Amino acid sequence: MSLLIVGSIALDNVETPYGKVDHSLGGSAIFTSMASKNFCKSSIVGIVGYDFPKSYFELFRENGLDTQDLKSVPGRTFHWAGKYNDLNKAETLDTQLNVFADFDPQLCDDNKKCDYVFLGNIDPVLQLKVLKQMNNAKITACDTMNFWISGAKSKLLKVINEVDIIFINEDELRMLTDVQNIFEAAQKAKEMGPQLIVVKRGEYGSFVYSDEFIFFAPVYPVRKVIDPTGAGDSFAGGFMGYIASQGNLEEITIKNAMIFGTITASFNVESFSIDRLRKICMNDILARKEVIEKSIRF
Amino acid sequence: MSLLIVGSIALDNVETPYGKVDHSLGGSAIFTSMASKNFCKSSIVGIVGYDFPKSYFELFRENGLDTQDLKSVPGRTFHWAGKYNDLNKAETLDTQLNVFADFDPQLCDDNKKCDYVFLGNIDPVLQLKVLKQMNNAKITACDTMNFWISGAKSKLLKVINEVDIIFINEDELRMLTDVQNIFEAAQKAKEMGPQLIVVKRGEYGSFVYSDEFIFFAPVYPVRKVIDPTGAGDSFAGGFMGYIASQGNLEEITIKNAMIFGTITASFNVESFSIDRLRKICMNDILARKEVIEKSIRF
Repeated sequence: MSLLIVGSIALDNVETPYGKVDHSLGGSAIFTSMASKNFCKSSIVGIVGYDFPKSYFELFRENGLDTQDLKSVPGRTFHWAGKYNDLNKAETLDTQLNVFADFDPQLCDDNKKCDYVFLGNIDPVLQLKVLKQMNNAKITACDTMNFWISGAKSKLLKVINEVDIIFINEDELRMLTDVQNIFEAAQKAKEMGPQLIVVKRGEYGSFVYSDEFIFFAPVYPVRKVIDPTGAGDSFAGGFMGYIASQGNLEEITIKNAMIFGTITASFNVESFSIDRLRKICMNDILARKEVIEKSIRF
Repeated sequence: MSLLIVGSIALDNVETPYGKVDHSLGGSAIFTSMASKNFCKSSIVGIVGYDFPKSYFELFRENGLDTQDLKSVPGRTFHWAGKYNDLNKAETLDTQLNVFADFDPQLCDDNKKCDYVFLGNIDPVLQLKVLKQMNNAKITACDTMNFWISGAKSKLLKVINEVDIIFINEDELRMLTDVQNIFEAAQKAKEMGPQLIVVKRGEYGSFVYSDEFIFFAPVYPVRKVIDPTGAGDSFAGGFMGYIASQGNLEEITIKNAMIFGTITASFNVESFSIDRLRKICMNDILARKEVIEKSIRF
């Protein structure tokens, strides 16, 4: 039940109405793996520079994350700086790819055997490269973004055709499919290959679309969103972690995965970086599950 | 179990990506009452001009709507013209108040005895005037809009303080309370007096906020939205119609009312004017209820 997580690892500067952090731990692979840790064993595949604090490797190990394929190389770690004026939209102030520009994921033998794969939002060429190295993964998923939809669509379509699940936000789904109605757009995305389309709608929750059913997950009603960075990644981490713990894509598993993704994302946005995610345990998660159940049961 | 519905009655010109209608039946009282008709007996309180087709009075009676307080006076009926470029936002092209400018609701004795009241989005002065005429209504509700929030706030706050339920969209709720976080905003609105805050979020569904619980209703996944005009009013009509049929504000009643509101709104947006609403029966409604239950049950 090991989950392989490939993505960016970053030292971010983030400013929101509630404060400001400098060079704090971030990146899609980090949010996803820290959200998955309560459900399954995860392996991080990524790259950092020599400026990356050694204490973080210790943190990863303490949280049960395998770091065999987390490469440390000369140079500086990927850096993103952003500011949220309202909490729904980040303004990017700076992006420095640094060592991430040369990221070329090569999996160790242990990681090639992972049954579950999450391909974070990186170049589709690299996503394909990871998929090719896997030995019969049972369930695979990818995330993406507008940059790759407009700039590398043919490669991206190959990835989408190969995975079981895609995570995508609603604007990107409309861009990918060129269809305005969100349910029609999900249908068109499904015809591109995946079994499940998970549509992220920010503060409005999410839904999953399959041939057999559609399922809406509300948000957990967070009263104070401190920093939305990584919300989508931590959603994917809770979702994929639960899928890996169950080992199937049955309807009931998928619906629960949507709820667990919702919950891990809700914890994530309550602090900067992974400060909240690192502290939660399964009891915290289950307490929120109860609240969510009550908020949609009738 | 009679529901009194006060609001505008209009002859609208509407253009959407799917077509165009001229002088078609519209207005908040119309959408609300046509949505409520499957649940309870409703009375329309409104005003029209002599240009208003007589056949519509017949239509109202066929649908069980009481028209004793639907006044017909010399002059032209309220007219709104709007265009939807994308289906989430109307551009107003023309507004002619006409006879609606002199609307002064005077209730007949029968209507004063209604147990349930829905005050559509009209001048808060008129909303208060209707409330004052009621003899011990059991459950009262109001809708409003940005125009009254900015232009007649103190009067509006009096209405809000007197009713049990307010229907409000999320932008208006933020404007009313000056609070950005939508759940905190709902809490602040609750402190203004009502027992229930029903927050409408367009294509993302809705939620209801009370002291005891929060409940999220998803949307019914409509594949082709023809005309969103009246979506909020038809939501309120399904909601209030069901409340009137049950006669209480228990948690289970409220949650079901949210789902019935969702369903009547979903039918409404599938056609121009009330073309779809006038044709549906309880079996159509219950079929959609089953779909919604499946889409949120886990």
